[in-house]
Amino acid sequence: MISPNDPNPAPESMKAGEVFPNSRRIYVAGSLHPEVRVPMREIDLSPTNHPSGRVEENAPIRVYDPSGPWGDPDFRGNVEKGLPALRRDWILARGDVEEYEGRSVKPEDNGYLSDEHADRYNQNKAAKNRLKEYPGLRRNPLRASSGHAVTQMWYAKQGIVTPEMEFIAIRENLGREEAYRTLKDGKGPRNLMNFQHEGNPWGAAIPEFITPEFVRDEVARGRAIIPANVNHPESEPMIIGRNFLVKINANIGNSAVASTIDEEVEKMRWATLWGADTVMDLSTGKNIHATREWIMRNSPVPIGTVPIYQALEKVNGRVEDLCWEVYRDTLIEQAEQGVDYFTIHAGVLLRFIPKTATRMTGIVSRGGSIMAKWCLSHHKENFLYTHWDEICDICADYDVSFSIGDGLRPGSIADANDEAQFGELEVQGDLTKTAWDKGVQVMNEGPGHVPMHLIHENMEKQLDWCHEAPFYTLGPLTTDIAPGYDHITSGIGAAMIGWYGCAMLCYVTPKEHLGLPNREDVREGVVTYKIAAHAADLAKGHPAAQERDNAVSKARFEFRWEDQFNLALDPPKALAFHDETLPQEGAKTAHFCSMCGPTFCSMKITEEVREYAAKQGLTEDQALEKGMQEKAEEFAENGAEIYSAS
Amino acid sequence: MISPNDPNPAPESMKAGEVFPNSRRIYVAGSLHPEVRVPMREIDLSPTNHPSGRVEENAPIRVYDPSGPWGDPDFRGNVEKGLPALRRDWILARGDVEEYEGRSVKPEDNGYLSDEHADRYNQNKAAKNRLKEYPGLRRNPLRASSGHAVTQMWYAKQGIVTPEMEFIAIRENLGREEAYRTLKDGKGPRNLMNFQHEGNPWGAAIPEFITPEFVRDEVARGRAIIPANVNHPESEPMIIGRNFLVKINANIGNSAVASTIDEEVEKMRWATLWGADTVMDLSTGKNIHATREWIMRNSPVPIGTVPIYQALEKVNGRVEDLCWEVYRDTLIEQAEQGVDYFTIHAGVLLRFIPKTATRMTGIVSRGGSIMAKWCLSHHKENFLYTHWDEICDICADYDVSFSIGDGLRPGSIADANDEAQFGELEVQGDLTKTAWDKGVQVMNEGPGHVPMHLIHENMEKQLDWCHEAPFYTLGPLTTDIAPGYDHITSGIGAAMIGWYGCAMLCYVTPKEHLGLPNREDVREGVVTYKIAAHAADLAKGHPAAQERDNAVSKARFEFRWEDQFNLALDPPKALAFHDETLPQEGAKTAHFCSMCGPTFCSMKITEEVREYAAKQGLTEDQALEKGMQEKAEEFAENGAEIYSAS
Repeated sequence: MISPNDPNPAPESMKAGEVFPNSRRIYVAGSLHPEVRVPMREIDLSPTNHPSGRVEENAPIRVYDPSGPWGDPDFRGNVEKGLPALRRDWILARGDVEEYEGRSVKPEDNGYLSDEHADRYNQNKAAKNRLKEYPGLRRNPLRASSGHAVTQMWYAKQGIVTPEMEFIAIRENLGREEAYRTLKDGKGPRNLMNFQHEGNPWGAAIPEFITPEFVRDEVARGRAIIPANVNHPESEPMIIGRNFLVKINANIGNSAVASTIDEEVEKMRWATLWGADTVMDLSTGKNIHATREWIMRNSPVPIGTVPIYQALEKVNGRVEDLCWEVYRDTLIEQAEQGVDYFTIHAGVLLRFIPKTATRMTGIVSRGGSIMAKWCLSHHKENFLYTHWDEICDICADYDVSFSIGDGLRPGSIADANDEAQFGELEVQGDLTKTAWDKGVQVMNEGPGHVPMHLIHENMEKQLDWCHEAPFYTLGPLTTDIAPGYDHITSGIGAAMIGWYGCAMLCYVTPKEHLGLPNREDVREGVVTYKIAAHAADLAKGHPAAQERDNAVSKARFEFRWEDQFNLALDPPKALAFHDETLPQEGAKTAHFCSMCGPTFCSMKITEEVREYAAKQGLTEDQALEKGMQEKAEEFAENGAEIYSAS
Repeated sequence: MISPNDPNPAPESMKAGEVFPNSRRIYVAGSLHPEVRVPMREIDLSPTNHPSGRVEENAPIRVYDPSGPWGDPDFRGNVEKGLPALRRDWILARGDVEEYEGRSVKPEDNGYLSDEHADRYNQNKAAKNRLKEYPGLRRNPLRASSGHAVTQMWYAKQGIVTPEMEFIAIRENLGREEAYRTLKDGKGPRNLMNFQHEGNPWGAAIPEFITPEFVRDEVARGRAIIPANVNHPESEPMIIGRNFLVKINANIGNSAVASTIDEEVEKMRWATLWGADTVMDLSTGKNIHATREWIMRNSPVPIGTVPIYQALEKVNGRVEDLCWEVYRDTLIEQAEQGVDYFTIHAGVLLRFIPKTATRMTGIVSRGGSIMAKWCLSHHKENFLYTHWDEICDICADYDVSFSIGDGLRPGSIADANDEAQFGELEVQGDLTKTAWDKGVQVMNEGPGHVPMHLIHENMEKQLDWCHEAPFYTLGPLTTDIAPGYDHITSGIGAAMIGWYGCAMLCYVTPKEHLGLPNREDVREGVVTYKIAAHAADLAKGHPAAQERDNAVSKARFEFRWEDQFNLALDPPKALAFHDETLPQEGAKTAHFCSMCGPTFCSMKITEEVREYAAKQGLTEDQALEKGMQEKAEEFAENGAEIYSAS
């Protein structure tokens, strides 16, 4: 756990520099908006020493980096002060928001009946998760003042390219042009762009270079969202849409059983260090408001929540007592704090609920089951549905994006793609349209548990029924028989649906269904989902995605062990695994590895094949190919020799 | 490491009973061949206590179990004695083999120049992997005596249903009928077979029940193989083909750098305990023959090898010195020991080699690069290709199946599906035809490293060019950026190609590209591949595959925690993960989990939804659905109420 007085900004046990050796934080400046500075991580590579004596430089590789200032070794902040308000000036410069005296924090926001109850609870030193008010800067909240939505979608529709959009365009290109310029001979590594992409059969269309105008257009169409609450200026702009890099979300959040505010802030920083693009704070129990304040002020990535969780705490867990007024107040409370997207289960309609009664696993979404219970208790339609217009109006005022929940998602393979699930999906589509009319950005949540052959139908129907709004799925898990390995059962489904066009993948950790994830589980979950997202980017044909694969492959083939580790998603693990078998320092420069030993390595033999060919007077690859071709032809002509045994 | 004198047959650190609590070994008898006794593991489940007070029995679940006698708590053998010769009588009863005085073991079989060298090496107590002759039963080898192949394919073509085939039919049905019989009320659990399978778009056609005749027919057509050397009577019959359960292979093998005979035997037992269907012994360096003897005599699953590795050791690692005579002698040596399938890189033709020179990662298959180097050194065609007829004749005499190697498989995303790879695949198809004409069973090896969108083309071309012979792939890895997690990068591709029709998946452990797997890596690799294979079985529509998913889901929904753990692929891990958050014994019977805490669990709320409905006078699921439907209709009629806020 980090100490709040720790002057060091990076997560305690592993700092960015230790996790990612030979990496530098760089910033690429905008041109439309020169104040835009896009952070990237640049991995330096060692040169290749060819057997011929030729030395070949290897261009550094730039990778997407959502860790924010915490990932910058020059940043000197701490979690008590919070992050700098990167976007504050951009937001104010648009001249369409006003500062106002926000709602004051009430005891029930943190789950207490009164201030007195809160004091009593927090004076009990045995209580694990004691209230700790955020000590840093308190700003008055901002909200729309000019009668129109202050959302990125509204600007996009007006033809305005915001600084956020240019930031994203640069970010999504992974700094390709820049990387090439640094290469001494002006050429990329061999085969850099030879990826045999045969077109994406699933309809995504990613341009060769992402421009700010392309970003604007996709947001205007509703095909992508930029979750960016005006009250979360600390966040670095990112985009969720199927014509961009596939994103991943990591869930954190304390619960009634375990974990503290400090741990949650630390988990957020830890998840983004490994590559989480957004974080959902799913806290329940005490101190929800305070936990969220700490997270918001320290998060460089968009934060999502499920407001019904907090609303339920405010009515002491009695679902029947939930009402629009409490929920509305919670939305405003969270919008003022800066939450970037809300999961809202407005598609759980009364008529779908009976369809779940004969399911193998009923309703497994927490939000979904809360709303189902509420509907049954009151014999009324879901109040999130009946108040959808007002919810849209609130979110338009702050630029809170919607993540329209899938409260009836399947909780098992047996329940995949059933009537209840698809009924709700159609309603998600209707709600999307209404939100767009109000200027609110929307994505739709999806399952869950789905066997491989039923995954594509989910993507197809969502695109169709929800008008190409971004899809955001949880996995899906492709089998239920491996509790303890559900990051893997779901990573399979996540990679596939990402390829099909899903824009964001909600991670699943090895502890899914079993317990709360600890640090190592978060790391394992994030890295697994980075794999799924990247595999999808490759398959979708993102033009820059394969550069990193090629760099790893080239390093591997050339026995540049350190480069292979440093280019990995998880360098410390790659290094540790290598060192388990061959701990000697020399082994990391050796032209062999432990699998085959020093004289029996296929990569070494291939090198010999090339050298051998070179010795025959062929010095270049092309010449080699030509020469060998001749030899083969000559051989073919003397066909009689074929069956003569040596 | 196990001690060879250990009377206890199970792997040291975890015995089957500890790994799989509440499981029993059962045997299902054959009817065509009453001597057939098919082992299965049966997992007992606790009853469901419904809120109404009704007690519902849950049928035990039977799962496929390749661990052999080692997984039977009543078995009293040890690794020095080896396993009983289960198939010996079946083989002899066919009356078409003869016992003969086999080839005698030469010093070079174990990598020594002479017996003297061997003695010197093994008297050095510092040497890690010292020669340890197998002390158990020595049988004279068997081979064909009647002028025809003694392969399962030959029998199948004659219309003979061997005991091996009936064994397999029972095994592939997962004992479904039997399991139902044990259920007290005669009915399966709710929703047991409601899997919404919509047909496999990729052409596999799995019947509702597998019959011995279906097994025979698939083997006769060459669409499936039963690797079953007449000299490996210890093996339990299993089948590899796309109309059967997807199988997985685990590679083991000592190398020049590390590991001993004991460790390899132990890894074989450990891998099959977790579910490996076949094991490949890829040992290199010293004592190859002795290591293999220990493995063969103790293995309940088919063993595969790459004979060129040993042949190369016999010529002291000098590729140029390889020749047909040494190779031929090695094939016979290994066939006499009982190896069930040989990987033979006969498709690496001279004309393909130049095509690899401009690759990102050249030739990464060890066998492939050895043969490439040999071809270049001699300016001659691959001697495995030129001697293919003779190789077929040898294998037909022992029923050694072919796993025709893919020596030019891609070693990186950049090299996937290139000309060299597909050129070799076409030749694999030609070799398959020739082998079939000789009665030899064949599967084809495939890649490797392939991005998701290029995977299907591999399966499609293999089915077409190789005449539907079973495909056996290594992964494929879907990205190269995650060394340390390549079980996951490849598990994604493995699940997909399994769905497309790949019959066997060669596992990849987390240590791939980095070092030799230890026990935990083997466990992680096997479980990951069991996930991939099972996800593929579900998606292919194997009629029995979903029963286990449903049983886990039902247990999960009903808070039968112990059942959920026991049904998992890795019960100890599921249990340990649960206990990390909630170690108290009571938590395992609690109606909540650590994710949501005691009062806020979605599954609990769903239960309340059902109970609530029940209180309204509706006692059964169907009635509940009907009642809710009425309520919803009534609600719809009073539409005016919809927009009245509570």
